[in-house]
Amino acid sequence: MAQDWKRDLDDRKAELEGELMELLAMPSVSTDPDRRDDVRATAEWVANRLRRAGVPEVRIVETDGHPAVLGRWRVSDDQPTVLIYGHYDVQPEEPVELWDTPAFAPTVRDGKVYARGSADMKGNLLTSLHGVEALARANGQPPINVTFIYEGEEEIGSPHLPQLVEAEKDFLACDAVLSADGGQFGPDQPELTVGLKGLGGCQINLTTANSDLHSGMYGATVPNAVQSMVQLAATFHDEDGRVQVEGFYDRVHDLTGDERAEIAEVPFDERGFRDDLGLDELWGEAGWSPVERQWARPTLDMNGIWGGFQGDGTKTVTPREAHLKVTCRLVPDQDPVEIVNLIEKHVQNHCPPGATVEVQRIEGSAKPFGIDRSNPVHIAAGEVLTELFDNAPYIVRGGGTIPATGIFKDILGVESVMFAWSMPGSGAHAPNEWYRLADYDRGRVGYAMLLERLKR
Amino acid sequence: MAQDWKRDLDDRKAELEGELMELLAMPSVSTDPDRRDDVRATAEWVANRLRRAGVPEVRIVETDGHPAVLGRWRVSDDQPTVLIYGHYDVQPEEPVELWDTPAFAPTVRDGKVYARGSADMKGNLLTSLHGVEALARANGQPPINVTFIYEGEEEIGSPHLPQLVEAEKDFLACDAVLSADGGQFGPDQPELTVGLKGLGGCQINLTTANSDLHSGMYGATVPNAVQSMVQLAATFHDEDGRVQVEGFYDRVHDLTGDERAEIAEVPFDERGFRDDLGLDELWGEAGWSPVERQWARPTLDMNGIWGGFQGDGTKTVTPREAHLKVTCRLVPDQDPVEIVNLIEKHVQNHCPPGATVEVQRIEGSAKPFGIDRSNPVHIAAGEVLTELFDNAPYIVRGGGTIPATGIFKDILGVESVMFAWSMPGSGAHAPNEWYRLADYDRGRVGYAMLLERLKR
Repeated sequence: MAQDWKRDLDDRKAELEGELMELLAMPSVSTDPDRRDDVRATAEWVANRLRRAGVPEVRIVETDGHPAVLGRWRVSDDQPTVLIYGHYDVQPEEPVELWDTPAFAPTVRDGKVYARGSADMKGNLLTSLHGVEALARANGQPPINVTFIYEGEEEIGSPHLPQLVEAEKDFLACDAVLSADGGQFGPDQPELTVGLKGLGGCQINLTTANSDLHSGMYGATVPNAVQSMVQLAATFHDEDGRVQVEGFYDRVHDLTGDERAEIAEVPFDERGFRDDLGLDELWGEAGWSPVERQWARPTLDMNGIWGGFQGDGTKTVTPREAHLKVTCRLVPDQDPVEIVNLIEKHVQNHCPPGATVEVQRIEGSAKPFGIDRSNPVHIAAGEVLTELFDNAPYIVRGGGTIPATGIFKDILGVESVMFAWSMPGSGAHAPNEWYRLADYDRGRVGYAMLLERLKR
Repeated sequence: MAQDWKRDLDDRKAELEGELMELLAMPSVSTDPDRRDDVRATAEWVANRLRRAGVPEVRIVETDGHPAVLGRWRVSDDQPTVLIYGHYDVQPEEPVELWDTPAFAPTVRDGKVYARGSADMKGNLLTSLHGVEALARANGQPPINVTFIYEGEEEIGSPHLPQLVEAEKDFLACDAVLSADGGQFGPDQPELTVGLKGLGGCQINLTTANSDLHSGMYGATVPNAVQSMVQLAATFHDEDGRVQVEGFYDRVHDLTGDERAEIAEVPFDERGFRDDLGLDELWGEAGWSPVERQWARPTLDMNGIWGGFQGDGTKTVTPREAHLKVTCRLVPDQDPVEIVNLIEKHVQNHCPPGATVEVQRIEGSAKPFGIDRSNPVHIAAGEVLTELFDNAPYIVRGGGTIPATGIFKDILGVESVMFAWSMPGSGAHAPNEWYRLADYDRGRVGYAMLLERLKR
């Protein structure tokens, strides 16, 4: 059986590559209002492709933004159901002038296809679709129940995904999510993700007097908003890089010895990492290795600050207002809303005399994610990756945030398993984004293998 | 004798007011390249007015910027020489829409003339000129030697004044400077200035990694430039508002008991001051009253800060650079160059690990100024003010900086006595700037009285 679908996929290799080129040529930039029609055309292309794969129920579902493509292939109540998640929208191509070949004219060089959206994530999207199709072509239908959701707003923070998942809760009901939005560790090294950070944050607005003032007349007597903000912001961390917001670490599970050992197994070239960034030394919470911090320790990050005079030369002003943007990367079981509440409390408690602070919540918060290691889909994914790469996956965590993961957990009550092939350094949000065709070919085999393995 | 020139001035009151209107109508905005010709025309108007007053040596002296007007009337080697200082340039009129009547269409309402440059300082300039002229009209020449310097770049920081004074050192040689750039304490309350603050400052540029980074991938491991700047900037003051830069106070003379008593005599309505600024409490170095701090304690002021993302919404960036603008208001005998050296040392010593800082000096530094109380011109000015206002002057200091004062001290080796009539709150750098005609009339009498009193 396996031989059949594998041979079939091999035979269709050129055809499937052609499909990738076709999809990559569509400029589905979700943040660009001028590309609205392109985004919709891409949704239609994906929906048609699902139909052509034999998926019986395929729908384009409208949102207040860009549409999502949903599909469902129910084969048996006795089989598990996986929900395959991905997105068909892409980042903008700017700065255009840095591309060696145009962003939406996919070009193959040295076994890589260069195009916007190749690594993030049209290649992976097709591998998930092709994997299901391969099994269906061999057996008339996939071995387990498969549902698809390919959204069109991931690159703008999935703003309408929660409503959509809520509204389509029954249609999307599943035992686990397979997320095709992710990557592999190295050319022949798979990875298995056991955690992702959450995100919460705010803008802190601080004011002092009712107008900017002349520093000669007032500087010695009136609170200076920039100085007050500096004093306030300096209370967020201690000298060891530990966040000083009361209660910040209360829900954090410190890594166990086993988890630290697991992380230590993953190679990390600190010297190369520093050199790439032009840094003499790294920074971070004392007591944890750089990778431990990046993967499993929460942070409070200052993303921007401004206040007073920022032009050339001198303006001897005592500024009346200053602003700070803060986001926190969170780990299980921290909650973004609670964390911003703690920050607000901290800010009010540490606001220097004479200043007033206001905390403005940001949109796009996300809960952290940690997988239950006994999840059968997680276990099966690890086994398939080992077989597919002939190499056991590294157990990794993500420092970044994937809102979808938290949304599926909250609304559908299920966990997400990352199952994807993009390479580190493939320029997901940068010029000359690339994707290896070898990974494209291997990825669809992986999807088919995993679905077979999940059959009861 | 005095009766003669006073009656003459009274008779010419309308004519002298007409001159003020004429001068105020000239838009001599030194910072505006489009007003270059207006600035020069104003210089010529002032030079011609000096000639008409009978000043024998009048010259327009070129600089690399706007010209200055110099004049000299030597009457006797046995008499002292005063140098009258003023400026004929003005601030820009922006924001234009906030003016009730156009900035360069002088309008009289309720005994005040509203126009840009009325308080700062075309009114005072004319009082100094008219005072000299009045004595000359009565006696054929002034009672003492008088030299004039009316510059055209005060509002842009007097950048060419040092070279000019150096080049004209012999012409400008004098026993003391009378500065017409200043003010009086209240409607019938004169003031006598015994100190002015100096100014020195820098821009601090801090960098960490070689590019902005994704906070999810790097925030836990890479030094954040905004956070590093916040930590660095927070080291400048302690909780008592005392500057923590090593050596900052080394040259500062703490106020004596007598000086504190002198300052305490000057009324200060702290409640009204706070209410006007919308503040619940003031700020400043512990141990000194607000007026003591403003007049006689040095400060380190943060004028501006910026770094990272400052737009709407969220950008989860780990910024690579941040900037801070700092100026210090200095008291005798602090030196602006030395102070910036100390700041540079402090900044290097307190730069957080992983960050690099660079200190960029600002232009327009100025030395602080304190008068020798035994200076005969200072003493005479106090006596004349008491007689003129029928009220002894408050002994005050300025929180602001007048670069000219330090330049005259450095190059000519003489002190400056402020002798001027602008009122507090007259909007020197703001819309609807005004000047009381009663002060204009009284001011020229004051100049004539002072020159008479200085005669040996």
